[in-house]
Amino acid sequence: MNIPSSNLPRLVIIGGGFAGVALAKKLVKEDFQIVLLDRNNYHTFQPLLYQVSISGLEPDSIAYPLRKIIKKGKNTYFRMAEVNNIDPNNQKVTTSIGDIYYDYLVIATGAKTNFFGNEVIENNAMRMKNLPQALNLRSLILENLEEAVRTEDEQKRKELLTFVIAGAGPTGVELSGGIAELRNHVLPRDFPDMDFSAMEIHLIEGSDRVLPPMSENASKKSTKFLEKLGVNIHLNTLVKDYSQHTVSTNTGLTLQTATFIWAAGVTGAPVDGLQADSFVAKTNRYQVNEINQVAGYNNIFAIGDIALMANETYPKGHPMVAQPAIQQGKHLAKNLKRHLKGKDMLPFEYFDKGTMATIGRNKAVVDLGKLRFAGFFAWFVWMFIHLWFLVGFRNRLVTFFNWSYNYINFDKAARLIVRPFKGSNDVIEKV
Amino acid sequence: MNIPSSNLPRLVIIGGGFAGVALAKKLVKEDFQIVLLDRNNYHTFQPLLYQVSISGLEPDSIAYPLRKIIKKGKNTYFRMAEVNNIDPNNQKVTTSIGDIYYDYLVIATGAKTNFFGNEVIENNAMRMKNLPQALNLRSLILENLEEAVRTEDEQKRKELLTFVIAGAGPTGVELSGGIAELRNHVLPRDFPDMDFSAMEIHLIEGSDRVLPPMSENASKKSTKFLEKLGVNIHLNTLVKDYSQHTVSTNTGLTLQTATFIWAAGVTGAPVDGLQADSFVAKTNRYQVNEINQVAGYNNIFAIGDIALMANETYPKGHPMVAQPAIQQGKHLAKNLKRHLKGKDMLPFEYFDKGTMATIGRNKAVVDLGKLRFAGFFAWFVWMFIHLWFLVGFRNRLVTFFNWSYNYINFDKAARLIVRPFKGSNDVIEKV
Repeated sequence: MNIPSSNLPRLVIIGGGFAGVALAKKLVKEDFQIVLLDRNNYHTFQPLLYQVSISGLEPDSIAYPLRKIIKKGKNTYFRMAEVNNIDPNNQKVTTSIGDIYYDYLVIATGAKTNFFGNEVIENNAMRMKNLPQALNLRSLILENLEEAVRTEDEQKRKELLTFVIAGAGPTGVELSGGIAELRNHVLPRDFPDMDFSAMEIHLIEGSDRVLPPMSENASKKSTKFLEKLGVNIHLNTLVKDYSQHTVSTNTGLTLQTATFIWAAGVTGAPVDGLQADSFVAKTNRYQVNEINQVAGYNNIFAIGDIALMANETYPKGHPMVAQPAIQQGKHLAKNLKRHLKGKDMLPFEYFDKGTMATIGRNKAVVDLGKLRFAGFFAWFVWMFIHLWFLVGFRNRLVTFFNWSYNYINFDKAARLIVRPFKGSNDVIEKV
Repeated sequence: MNIPSSNLPRLVIIGGGFAGVALAKKLVKEDFQIVLLDRNNYHTFQPLLYQVSISGLEPDSIAYPLRKIIKKGKNTYFRMAEVNNIDPNNQKVTTSIGDIYYDYLVIATGAKTNFFGNEVIENNAMRMKNLPQALNLRSLILENLEEAVRTEDEQKRKELLTFVIAGAGPTGVELSGGIAELRNHVLPRDFPDMDFSAMEIHLIEGSDRVLPPMSENASKKSTKFLEKLGVNIHLNTLVKDYSQHTVSTNTGLTLQTATFIWAAGVTGAPVDGLQADSFVAKTNRYQVNEINQVAGYNNIFAIGDIALMANETYPKGHPMVAQPAIQQGKHLAKNLKRHLKGKDMLPFEYFDKGTMATIGRNKAVVDLGKLRFAGFFAWFVWMFIHLWFLVGFRNRLVTFFNWSYNYINFDKAARLIVRPFKGSNDVIEKV
């Protein structure tokens, strides 16, 4: 892949998500030759993917060119590549564009949607873990509405106007709230000849409350917000099947729907090649020690969603969200700098900055340690934090402008079917 | 397609481009039942498509939901549909979503790329007449650069870094200037490990000057601008073939390139079904009289690129650009209102507002009647006019912001491969 040889130790980073980018940014000026690999040429700000799906933001606002992120490094190389295999004995990574040797390897491949082995659901449900998937969902929602307004078959229209989301974590809550707001404010103006009282949004959750990772207070408040927006919540309910446009659950509930979104879990996205015991099969994550070293290897590290660092506070590892990934990336950068100077590496400590989710206009919930609040102020904090963490001045300003516009006009401006999803047989969607 | 019957005469408009939209907007509050059909749910601002291809603008900035444009009409219906056939005897249009009867029909289907019967070029060249095509071109340019930086084959790299554009009309000039600016300002920072002196841009034109529809002065100035940017111009040259990554011309020129863009002509995009003599085979446009009536029919009109209205000033019809389309749409609206009141329709007169093209930063040419100017002021006028004509406040502001950002930073921020083009076998691209 045409990387020049150098006297510097070579550090290969697989994945340009939150963890990989945080690491690379801190090391570009250090004495490493850095090779960053990603299947895309951009970093995705995943917490706002749902905004793309509900036509609130343009895809380019939440993506940022990876080359631009690392351009300050003299010995830093980006290569767009799919990684197929790691060969730890020869310190080699095999990719879609050739092999590359490493001195140090960092695996930051993140997570993918978890279907818990249900192939029927995997083949039929929409998912939303990357930009093409989020765009496919946007297209499908809009295409189904176009079909609903023109069909003369009442049963079919009902199906097209029913939206079912499995999983009431932040993604499920934000999506169902967003779709409800489309119905309440945007769509009736767009489709004056359609009766939107027939449109239904169902949110299905296996546990006994929405937003299970958050506080009881956040669950209660977000339930109230969702109900106010008209979302039907089904708790203690597991989706068993989705075929022939019918969702069925373990509680006997059946829902006819043309849009079924699976947001009920994630699992690690590891790379083949490492020894079996470096790896926790149940969650597909690499077992790492307190300095993010993968079990069994000295020069292979894993950070972010793909790393499982079990300790007393987090016996099952850290939550698979942005903050632990960013913090691990930064921490590993510090440790690798120490290592260059012959110093010992320091253990990682996670600083929990809190959790938040937005349900809609003026409606969000925030848990900051013991501080828990909801409503307009929480929503404001949510917006501020997300703008702050977006990469790049341009993306921040465009997003800020779009949100202001949408807020003032009760609108979602990006409702465009640029690539139809139906019948497109899009292979990208399955990744 | 579920359009309610009404006492109002039904006006079916095929196509939501400049002409169809100008017409529909002026008639939404009149005593017609309007049905607007388009294969997309958005209007495309075609003059800025090239900015999407060179990563200067996001696709959503130059597209606008058609439903939003017509939402003020009580008797106005939008349906997303592909139109297959017109049956004038039964006053019926056949579409992908069923048949519809009309009292009045307006054909505003615009133009498509003209390959002059060369199937090899049609199968292999990139084109840029709609948003998915513009996005495909953006992806291909960026994918080729990614491949160029990693290949170790010098010959292959040369091919990947060579960009050939056929046709030096506004599209070809704007594209080649835009790609040259990417090379001069943006790419060297993105790819510090690549030598961009090897990157070549060739613009091939059949006539003896660039921008043949504009003044001699504009041609001279734009030639100077293009040469300053480092574009190789080949005049009096016709592309004969493009296969196995080789462009060959009637002058014996051969160029190895992985990116060949065909911008050498457009032709009408008519609908099947009308009698043969309503139609000028050479240009695929409908023959219309001075009130835009299609030859041989009383209640069928054609406006915009698809209409050929020959008169003394324009013996071959009006230029196939935005202004005649907008003016014909507005004029036909006026005439249809007169018709409702039993008044005679008035002949269309085209008011030539001038022509302009931008080559790059501070570089544009403008012909306004006898007033001809070039350089910074022309570029400023070009920007102002294009912002003015963009549909929607949000699109104007986002575009303005992106342009300002790009100008200040010598940047093009949207360089993202959201949908890879290579190997995607994208059928949309061929439309």
